[in-house]
Amino acid sequence: MADRGLIVSVSGPSGVGKGTVLKRLTELIEEKWPGRSSYSISATTRSPRPGETDGVEYHFRTREEFEKMIETGEIIEYDLYVGNYYGTPAAPLAEKVGQGKIVLCDITIEGSLAIEKKFDEDSVTIMLLPPSYSELEARLKGRGTEDEAKVAARLAKAREEIARTGEFEYAVQNIEVDQAAADIMKIIESEMLKTIRQTQTIKNLD
Amino acid sequence: MADRGLIVSVSGPSGVGKGTVLKRLTELIEEKWPGRSSYSISATTRSPRPGETDGVEYHFRTREEFEKMIETGEIIEYDLYVGNYYGTPAAPLAEKVGQGKIVLCDITIEGSLAIEKKFDEDSVTIMLLPPSYSELEARLKGRGTEDEAKVAARLAKAREEIARTGEFEYAVQNIEVDQAAADIMKIIESEMLKTIRQTQTIKNLD
Repeated sequence: MADRGLIVSVSGPSGVGKGTVLKRLTELIEEKWPGRSSYSISATTRSPRPGETDGVEYHFRTREEFEKMIETGEIIEYDLYVGNYYGTPAAPLAEKVGQGKIVLCDITIEGSLAIEKKFDEDSVTIMLLPPSYSELEARLKGRGTEDEAKVAARLAKAREEIARTGEFEYAVQNIEVDQAAADIMKIIESEMLKTIRQTQTIKNLD
Repeated sequence: MADRGLIVSVSGPSGVGKGTVLKRLTELIEEKWPGRSSYSISATTRSPRPGETDGVEYHFRTREEFEKMIETGEIIEYDLYVGNYYGTPAAPLAEKVGQGKIVLCDITIEGSLAIEKKFDEDSVTIMLLPPSYSELEARLKGRGTEDEAKVAARLAKAREEIARTGEFEYAVQNIEVDQAAADIMKIIESEMLKTIRQTQTIKNLD
């Protein structure tokens, strides 16, 4: 029997590199604990696109089902985007933690805080920070997909978001992908050494 | 200006290897953060032995001074041993944390819990566990300094102490010195990534 798992919520401003860091982190987790990494899957009311499967890319739900999930508290946090709901359902997270999985969430600030409130000791919240604001600006411009006004708006939003770092438990700077993933891995390894996750170790001393 | 430091209290049964692990851990801390490692120095009413210096091996105090320190709450926890007081003074710990030091304490269970209560977020508590009870017994016998009855008494006490692991934040098994020191180092590195210790990082983003 494995000890309980952990939900790892990672938030951070647009352009900070959450997706790339979490991909590298998944590799590190699988190297150390094969089969234990997992990814939080959102629920949505938008229709599946060709090739998408329920429970893989998203949990696809009708509007009625989704609104009922909001009412019952099953949806921890949600947004409306282009007329469709997107949200985080609680039950799959609870199930994965019970199986000892390490569940990574690429999620908004409100989402991280809502998960922390619901899952408490089974969850950690991490703010991913850029090396500097000028480097974040360079990364946003480097995408080449946005004009100057949009980049300025994203930077202003980044400052607002980073000002809320104190609401998170940990802050990791993404100076370089391998370093940022390694830092988050240390947080996870340290969390695994918490006494609440060591009940099996203590039983096995005999 | 460095961010605040951390008090690392390590408790564990007799024979588990606290001293050896903390010695190795000091090396790891100095490799990563030169000059930041430190050691908690106890206060005592016993007389200095030849070569001992006040503030190095111990803070040497008179019985009157020590009892006053107990009264004012300056002594966090203490024991009486062969007619002399031994205890942990709060002021040097607070001072070192303010300087950004990582202060290692080789300390009783009650001492760890008292420090945690007083220093809260500036402190972590770690229970050092043996690989197994049979291995702990082998280590105690291997010292060759104690008869069978004493070893049995120490083992019984070890079981009592380990039963209190849940009162600690972390548990680290000392299967091998390098691994145990590395595990505690991960806990420290992770603690350094807590947002309460990242105020300078956030200021420096501009």
